Amino acid sequence: MQSKRAGSQTAQAAASRQGVVSVRLIGRPAVSPVCASKKVGRVTPAARRADTIKAQSAATIDKTAAPSVTPSSNGAGTRVMIIGGDGYCGWATALHLSARGYSVCIVDNLCRRQFDLQLGLDTLTPIASLHDRVRKWSEVSGKHISLQIGDICDWEFLSQAFTSFRPEHVVHFGEQRSAPYSMIDRQKAVYTQTNNVVGTLNVLFAIKELAPECHLVKLGTMGEYGTPNIDIEEGYLTVTHNGRTDTLPYPKQGSSFYHLSKIHDSTNMLFTCRAWKVAATDLNQGVVYGVRTDETMADPLLINRYDYDGIFGTALNRFVVQAAVGHPLTVYGKGGQTRGFLDIRDTVRCIQLAIDHPASRGEMRVFNQFTEQFSVNQLADMVSREGRKLGLDVVVQSVPNPRVEAEEHYYNAKHTKLVELGLQPHLMADSMMDSLLEFAVQYKERVRHELIKPAVDWRKTGVKVNTMGAAVAQ
Amino acid sequence: MQSKRAGSQTAQAAASRQGVVSVRLIGRPAVSPVCASKKVGRVTPAARRADTIKAQSAATIDKTAAPSVTPSSNGAGTRVMIIGGDGYCGWATALHLSARGYSVCIVDNLCRRQFDLQLGLDTLTPIASLHDRVRKWSEVSGKHISLQIGDICDWEFLSQAFTSFRPEHVVHFGEQRSAPYSMIDRQKAVYTQTNNVVGTLNVLFAIKELAPECHLVKLGTMGEYGTPNIDIEEGYLTVTHNGRTDTLPYPKQGSSFYHLSKIHDSTNMLFTCRAWKVAATDLNQGVVYGVRTDETMADPLLINRYDYDGIFGTALNRFVVQAAVGHPLTVYGKGGQTRGFLDIRDTVRCIQLAIDHPASRGEMRVFNQFTEQFSVNQLADMVSREGRKLGLDVVVQSVPNPRVEAEEHYYNAKHTKLVELGLQPHLMADSMMDSLLEFAVQYKERVRHELIKPAVDWRKTGVKVNTMGAAVAQ
Repeated sequence: MQSKRAGSQTAQAAASRQGVVSVRLIGRPAVSPVCASKKVGRVTPAARRADTIKAQSAATIDKTAAPSVTPSSNGAGTRVMIIGGDGYCGWATALHLSARGYSVCIVDNLCRRQFDLQLGLDTLTPIASLHDRVRKWSEVSGKHISLQIGDICDWEFLSQAFTSFRPEHVVHFGEQRSAPYSMIDRQKAVYTQTNNVVGTLNVLFAIKELAPECHLVKLGTMGEYGTPNIDIEEGYLTVTHNGRTDTLPYPKQGSSFYHLSKIHDSTNMLFTCRAWKVAATDLNQGVVYGVRTDETMADPLLINRYDYDGIFGTALNRFVVQAAVGHPLTVYGKGGQTRGFLDIRDTVRCIQLAIDHPASRGEMRVFNQFTEQFSVNQLADMVSREGRKLGLDVVVQSVPNPRVEAEEHYYNAKHTKLVELGLQPHLMADSMMDSLLEFAVQYKERVRHELIKPAVDWRKTGVKVNTMGAAVAQ
Repeated sequence: MQSKRAGSQTAQAAASRQGVVSVRLIGRPAVSPVCASKKVGRVTPAARRADTIKAQSAATIDKTAAPSVTPSSNGAGTRVMIIGGDGYCGWATALHLSARGYSVCIVDNLCRRQFDLQLGLDTLTPIASLHDRVRKWSEVSGKHISLQIGDICDWEFLSQAFTSFRPEHVVHFGEQRSAPYSMIDRQKAVYTQTNNVVGTLNVLFAIKELAPECHLVKLGTMGEYGTPNIDIEEGYLTVTHNGRTDTLPYPKQGSSFYHLSKIHDSTNMLFTCRAWKVAATDLNQGVVYGVRTDETMADPLLINRYDYDGIFGTALNRFVVQAAVGHPLTVYGKGGQTRGFLDIRDTVRCIQLAIDHPASRGEMRVFNQFTEQFSVNQLADMVSREGRKLGLDVVVQSVPNPRVEAEEHYYNAKHTKLVELGLQPHLMADSMMDSLLEFAVQYKERVRHELIKPAVDWRKTGVKVNTMGAAVAQ
């Protein structure tokens, strides 16, 4: 670990001495100095895979979207540990912060890639290995991202990661994040709750014991609130009852074992903020869409994942891919289900805002992290309308809802706190063409139709291990 | 398993043929037919231990308190699985229901006894092994309680227990139930949440897949609500907010990793009631006191445990023992902490009421299970007053509060639903002399003073494994 960091620091220093931070869009994958001696004179399997990814992706890279890496960025070397930094939101956040001068350490056990292997899924975009990603980032930006590959449920690993990196902020994306995955079978329900709850407990203990000043930025979900018949506030609700008033945690109602695990995390975090004076920001994020950020588009090896399958694909990403390949947009049930949404370019900015304006010791701050709310039918209408502008023949189809959820309901969720901190949202209507549909059309040859349909039925979650049933079968 | 049950059924049938259900208070521990061949002609270690317990306890057994076992009981053979049936509340409940004609199966992994071994603790009362307990109960009552020794976190075990017993009701006491235990160190926090959450998830899956009509009676805790500045309702709160109204889960605020685990359970249960139509009763129980029930007092080998130590002892049990041995009553902090309390004789009746009036399919019913509320100072006053009547010199001492909790607060918790079902409470003032103080005085030679003091400080919960620190040291 120490030698790896030292080596990359050398590379970083060398880039810095050149006086410029060049953004190279074409080239061999970066080889960090510490590894160079092993690789001279032969092409490794990783390098071959990297070349393949590059060839597949090069056409779609937006060469004008160079990362805004400037010496005047405000990160000022602040040490940010990003748990789950190899995932969809985590990777984009790691690069966003690294580009802006934060010192980033990615902690990841690569389980997201393992889920794809387990279920026979694949991202629409061909993604490089995490090691190749950070090497390329170093080459492209002159910035070093350190890696700690391991499981935060393993205390021995996590404690050493904390001790060696000494984070000032921990951004915790490191959870099993798919509702359908958590509903495949009993094993995966138990895995989801154990993995997510124990991981977060360990992070809380690491902060208390090893880095008490460290600010926790934890990704929750808007799904913690469910669909109550009253306005959704940001984390807390002031209640007057029988003549007395108190401000209490907003009542939570999860609709999958995944969503429930995030409620458990929030409940645990509130206690540790009070008992141990932990400083925490709980970001109840909406449904994220899109794949482009400046940094992930800077090189084929940096491209982010894009999930469209029935298990990890979020609603809008799936609709866009369906439109691109001429598959009917599959609306679950009546389509009145309304949720909050945000562009991944806003996800990364929200994280930065939370870091730049941290919670105080003992404060459990909750932000609702989304920018617009839509019903599923509204999403389908928007994708249809924009798709037709591209000459796509878009059909909307209602399919039986595999979930147990209200299909027509009141929904009005507040989301002002991040705007007050300075968030200027991207709007979905503006992103639909350039960041979504066009992108999906370019990659449509990689789409596997059998992965699109709903794969997990909430009512049928059973005790039989059902990995294949949840993937491509049935 | 099959042969064991068959053997005991033979014993039960034999008792039944005698035409009476005799209550034998003195005698050898029962030997079930299936084990008899191994034991003829020698005294086993278990039998020696049983004799020791009998000798220690015989003096205190209330020979007039024979269990009310009558052929006209209303249990009617209803199959009730009691998970955690070897614990304080579970054992009393198992006997109470068995005596009334329910067909009882105890499921237990004996972890409560393991905690005592681990921490060097012991119950005030000498308790027999679970196997000796059920053998004696069969001899005393003619009723068979079947045993399944295993861990409900082990799905293979739990599914087989369900399949073989086919419960109509599951009473789930089977959790790590001590707040201080959960705050000893990181390992025990993680253990508590994993054990409790996964165990309950497995029970929910077992019901869904193997016994969908089975009614779950789950023990929660009044501690799930915390100490809000508004009235505490039974499980749900009707909120009017910005002109709209909804009835939502009552906001929860746990004050230890144990309490939090029960919140997680409740949150998970609500989802499964909605998604899978599970029928569940969540009993948010207050602090239980006392040790006598009719059945547990019918023989020395049936006596219940009585915890007075700083980790498993509840406030009132601890005060009573302190009074008996001349130790100052240790009030944590200002003593304004107010909680709900109930006699263990009411615990067992509440469980029976929940079973006799089950929840409907899809219903997640919540009862607040306590009968009176007192502040810690009120408890100390009551013990002092009654203790002096017995000639005890009782002193009250404030000690630094090891917990993080409000020491002066509003507290008004509703508890009408069980009363509406027929609960007639025992009152603490009436139980103080006969079921508490006198009892503690009789056993005072067994009291170990070093176990009484607060052993776990909420602010110091750390990552260092601290088993000895939490027990008798410091």
